[in-house]
Amino acid sequence: MPKKIFFTPGPSALYFTLESHLKQALKEQVAEINHRSVQAGSYFKEASDNLRSLMNIPKDYHIFFLSSANEIWERLIQNCIINHSSHLSYGAFSQRFREFAIKWGIDAQEVSAEPGSIPKDFVDQIHLDTELIGLTLNETSTGVTFPQEKIYEIRDNFPNALIAVDGVSAFPAIDLDFSKVDSAYFSVQKCFGLPAGLGVWIVNNRCVAKAEVKLEKGLSIGAYQALPNLVKNAANSQPTYTTNVLNVYLLAKVTADMLEKGIDVIRRETNYKAALLQHMVTKHTGLDHFVQSPELRSKTVVVANTKVDSSQWVEALSQKGFIIGKGYGSFRKDQIRIASFPTHSKELIELLVDTIQAINL
Amino acid sequence: MPKKIFFTPGPSALYFTLESHLKQALKEQVAEINHRSVQAGSYFKEASDNLRSLMNIPKDYHIFFLSSANEIWERLIQNCIINHSSHLSYGAFSQRFREFAIKWGIDAQEVSAEPGSIPKDFVDQIHLDTELIGLTLNETSTGVTFPQEKIYEIRDNFPNALIAVDGVSAFPAIDLDFSKVDSAYFSVQKCFGLPAGLGVWIVNNRCVAKAEVKLEKGLSIGAYQALPNLVKNAANSQPTYTTNVLNVYLLAKVTADMLEKGIDVIRRETNYKAALLQHMVTKHTGLDHFVQSPELRSKTVVVANTKVDSSQWVEALSQKGFIIGKGYGSFRKDQIRIASFPTHSKELIELLVDTIQAINL
Repeated sequence: MPKKIFFTPGPSALYFTLESHLKQALKEQVAEINHRSVQAGSYFKEASDNLRSLMNIPKDYHIFFLSSANEIWERLIQNCIINHSSHLSYGAFSQRFREFAIKWGIDAQEVSAEPGSIPKDFVDQIHLDTELIGLTLNETSTGVTFPQEKIYEIRDNFPNALIAVDGVSAFPAIDLDFSKVDSAYFSVQKCFGLPAGLGVWIVNNRCVAKAEVKLEKGLSIGAYQALPNLVKNAANSQPTYTTNVLNVYLLAKVTADMLEKGIDVIRRETNYKAALLQHMVTKHTGLDHFVQSPELRSKTVVVANTKVDSSQWVEALSQKGFIIGKGYGSFRKDQIRIASFPTHSKELIELLVDTIQAINL
Repeated sequence: MPKKIFFTPGPSALYFTLESHLKQALKEQVAEINHRSVQAGSYFKEASDNLRSLMNIPKDYHIFFLSSANEIWERLIQNCIINHSSHLSYGAFSQRFREFAIKWGIDAQEVSAEPGSIPKDFVDQIHLDTELIGLTLNETSTGVTFPQEKIYEIRDNFPNALIAVDGVSAFPAIDLDFSKVDSAYFSVQKCFGLPAGLGVWIVNNRCVAKAEVKLEKGLSIGAYQALPNLVKNAANSQPTYTTNVLNVYLLAKVTADMLEKGIDVIRRETNYKAALLQHMVTKHTGLDHFVQSPELRSKTVVVANTKVDSSQWVEALSQKGFIIGKGYGSFRKDQIRIASFPTHSKELIELLVDTIQAINL
């Protein structure tokens, strides 16, 4: 049976070089070596250095390898919030970070929007005493992007709060000026095309200082994933626990491939593929944009309302070997979601668009 | 270059069938499917069912897939302890659980022993008001085993406390009557021969009830890895986050292989290999037992004092393609550690023993 092609918004298609890197990893016995060995350290360093180059992460920002973006939500709460946080909330994932904070006993403000848009007048709404402002660059559940200029506007208006950006399904395809935020994070099974099981956490020293303030106040910041411990270990390219070294190796190799291709090329292609997909949604009589405002439409996850039950679309494309996603949560039956990640070539997206245009639903 | 054979106490050699399962996983696109799909659910169920059969885990005990044994320490603290815990402490790993508890603000009693032995009179020492008693079945740092009968003795004397058993580098080679403990856990890169990145947490309903008591008292038990949430999701073979599905698949396949081989055979071979290795330590003039009491010597991780710097042993064996471990922590230069896990065949251990016997150090 020929392989299916996954256009699901995560997990998604593996990066096109992944299989050969995995075979090389078996040859090099990457999964058998000690996670604190010099060899493993070289993979941690390579992955970290490559990410820094690829995404232009400032030198004084730390890069840590954790188990998932969900874990990173908890580590942000544990290390960087004492009482108050604010969450720009416009879909399942941006909401969930707030729900996590509430479960950890934080007074977590919600600054919400209707699904398919982003909050209005958020600068006026965010509480002045907030310690951390969370927002999502690319809301995978609704296909909404949060424009970067608006993030920088938050920075200007809230110089004392920490800003934490969820870059899941955005990085590295979407650019961000990291110097204007304090923390950002992503998981590897989206745009990086890796197997799930690794989250990458980027923090600056303001986050570390906040963790130290908590500690001085006698508050717990946890154990092995406490920021001071992460900083100490990462400085020597060491993990804080028996990390998924195989995935760190694969991330090092995929980011090297991306650097060779060039981040500008990846981002230009992302723009081109997004334009193709958005144009298709505009033209197709069976589809309609969920995100009304064109400038809020995600470039990596396209969400369209369907006239028929979304399962008919999923089924029709599945017969061609293309796997797309249904709508998220309550939109399950009424929407389809299509990922356009760096592994999806222009030609592949063109083929997908042609295939969808020929479907009469 | 021929592949090296890893006898390190974790990560260690991959299970001998692992590579073919990984190739099959690529064919079946296991790393691309959604973690909440029916297909992924079937892997969660298969891994869970196989573990239950293999290790004779009672029907009413839950099995959860987390990211590491370190994470499970934190989840035990978060869900199952309010104020007081007790830790039988006889090596780096049993100590570390206690250190985690202290960092989480728990009054964590240490019941300690000299390295190379286990605590004496622990029943008299453990505080009567303790909520949870932690102990380690196989102390990977020192090669000490904690005899099962002594665990059952703790059960008899502390019927109200929760007992949590660290089974890292022991399960499934070492048997345990799960009905006499409340929780047990392990990571997959030891006896199961998988790539790192997955921890398995086994809990009974007393643990879940304790989490609910904490919640009723208004205390936080965290978010996605809170026991009630883990129970709810596992009941439908669903993960609580984007788990490392590839590793869950591999665990399902390796445990199926182990079931086919038979757990009795695996355990008989473990005994035979341990006898060979221990006998070699007794006979070799350059080696000596670190664990004085024969009944406390681990069957899966053999630790020997060396007369020369341990790096000479590591180097001599490395030249033959055999990778062994140095001593842990302060014993780094004075000891070697050799793993004998289910993937290490009798013939392989015989060959290793012959090779070591021929080395004059």
